[in-house]
Amino acid sequence: MSQLTEFELIAQYFSRQKHIRSDVLLGQGDDCAVVTTTPATQIAVTTDTMVAGVHFDAHMPARAIGHKLVAVNLSDLAAMGAEPAWLSLAITMPEVDTKWIEDFTAGMYELAEYYHCQLIGGDTTRGPLTLTLTAQGLLPEGQKLTRAGAKPGDWIFVSGCLGDAAAALAVQQGLLEATDFVRHQLEERLFYPTPRVALGQAIRHAATSCVDVSDGLVADLGHILQRSNVGARLFLHQLPYSKVMLGLDEEQRRDFALFGGDDYELCFTVPEEERGALETSLAHSGVSLTCIGQIDKQPGLRMFDHQQEVSAQGRGYQHFAAAKDSPKG
Amino acid sequence: MSQLTEFELIAQYFSRQKHIRSDVLLGQGDDCAVVTTTPATQIAVTTDTMVAGVHFDAHMPARAIGHKLVAVNLSDLAAMGAEPAWLSLAITMPEVDTKWIEDFTAGMYELAEYYHCQLIGGDTTRGPLTLTLTAQGLLPEGQKLTRAGAKPGDWIFVSGCLGDAAAALAVQQGLLEATDFVRHQLEERLFYPTPRVALGQAIRHAATSCVDVSDGLVADLGHILQRSNVGARLFLHQLPYSKVMLGLDEEQRRDFALFGGDDYELCFTVPEEERGALETSLAHSGVSLTCIGQIDKQPGLRMFDHQQEVSAQGRGYQHFAAAKDSPKG
Repeated sequence: MSQLTEFELIAQYFSRQKHIRSDVLLGQGDDCAVVTTTPATQIAVTTDTMVAGVHFDAHMPARAIGHKLVAVNLSDLAAMGAEPAWLSLAITMPEVDTKWIEDFTAGMYELAEYYHCQLIGGDTTRGPLTLTLTAQGLLPEGQKLTRAGAKPGDWIFVSGCLGDAAAALAVQQGLLEATDFVRHQLEERLFYPTPRVALGQAIRHAATSCVDVSDGLVADLGHILQRSNVGARLFLHQLPYSKVMLGLDEEQRRDFALFGGDDYELCFTVPEEERGALETSLAHSGVSLTCIGQIDKQPGLRMFDHQQEVSAQGRGYQHFAAAKDSPKG
Repeated sequence: MSQLTEFELIAQYFSRQKHIRSDVLLGQGDDCAVVTTTPATQIAVTTDTMVAGVHFDAHMPARAIGHKLVAVNLSDLAAMGAEPAWLSLAITMPEVDTKWIEDFTAGMYELAEYYHCQLIGGDTTRGPLTLTLTAQGLLPEGQKLTRAGAKPGDWIFVSGCLGDAAAALAVQQGLLEATDFVRHQLEERLFYPTPRVALGQAIRHAATSCVDVSDGLVADLGHILQRSNVGARLFLHQLPYSKVMLGLDEEQRRDFALFGGDDYELCFTVPEEERGALETSLAHSGVSLTCIGQIDKQPGLRMFDHQQEVSAQGRGYQHFAAAKDSPKG
């Protein structure tokens, strides 16, 4: 009936993904999408927003923005042990830039399709560049992995390595010097984080609690301690780093790992009796796991460097804390 | 572990709603919310964004913004015949204004609770004021009401009355003169639209298609015609108006109703054989229903004023069309 507005044309970019899920009964183009679940399935729901000038800047390619928007949401699903299913995208843009949209959607669809996840709808509006994704995932009944189950004696594990994304940000801000090679290596982790989706599902039975490391290890492990009503000892000398991070001085490296955020690794707790089986079963999974501490009764987080207790109020703490703006609702 | 940032404090406003739904297994405060459905239930999902300076301005009280954000999303659920259940809110704010947040959340919770709908999570970020809500509703298996089922001969109905919101906007912009009383009456409809939630569920069996009128009757009925692959005749002299709209000249009133948008009434089609029963059953529902046209085979929308065909390209059309920015993804 009506001519297409430029924003309607843009909306077409968001309906290009192939129909890949039989549980999507109605996709884009009506008042709502309609989806369905199989019996004894529960649904995990998460929402994350990325704002231009706050969560990314001109350094970040559009493809990376699309990738990261999906990654940060799938990382929340991973932390619940959920299997990604459906995405709803709200995109607010100041003007139509078709090249940007093409690259953004390419980054988004690449990662979404890798995890068999379908964009089912959303909204396209004019305004300052803001991207909000709501991701939904499926969980077998009663098997959700929360922040609340850690028990004294449980071992604390983290996947992959920590601090690269924060170091990349420091390089971009001129606070850290780096060769082009190192900068590129670090930025790959900042721009294209890997949501630990398979790991989240693999540890669902063995782990007692889990969180994804988006705000820095201290803050996110802190969420587990608070919700589980326990404390922990953290073994600083065990923190896992990438090769390029080993070139930094130790204190700097630790600050990035402890307080920097944007790593999107999983931090989770495992009882002593499950530890051996979990390590064995995941030895060849392609994701490294490192035991970095232990839960205890005494509230608070105590940090140790080879048996020596270290103050938790490191120099990095307040600096990074001041920049935080996105606790989960 | 960490001190609360100002944004974490704000996030607490978004966890104040009472726990009102037993299908919300885990609400705010973890990596995801977790919800569940009963067997033979499907889920309708919709997302709508409101941007400061685009969808609302300084005229609009914070409470109205909260109400309207929920209303526009529930209106999409209503158009599918779905029963509202869960809300996820992404709010981006330039600074913390606790009074604004209090009023905004009050408006949001009032309407959400009226429809037994629960805020299950979201994200709070810093940046230009942008509000995105994803609403989910429940549908009995196979009973979704889409835009695609209208058949030649079906009667076209609309709920309530049309054009008030567009007229309110024209008053605000100085394009239309009004007394304070009239302005107030019109603004109530612009600021506090009523999503036709009960009506959507009541017509689920009888209606062959449905859409909510958010972009103006011509544009939204156009969506039904396009998706159903049919055309229609519209009876302009039948369009329903509020009392205050009857004070405007007829051409102006029609332009607001046909092209203005923001009404959030339901427009739906009903086969001849269902019409009598539907009108009877809804006679005392508190929502007026008006038959405003009929579907036919010939593609396109033809408008009639007492048997006289009128051009569809009225003066209001391009003007309002140019301002449109938010087709559904």
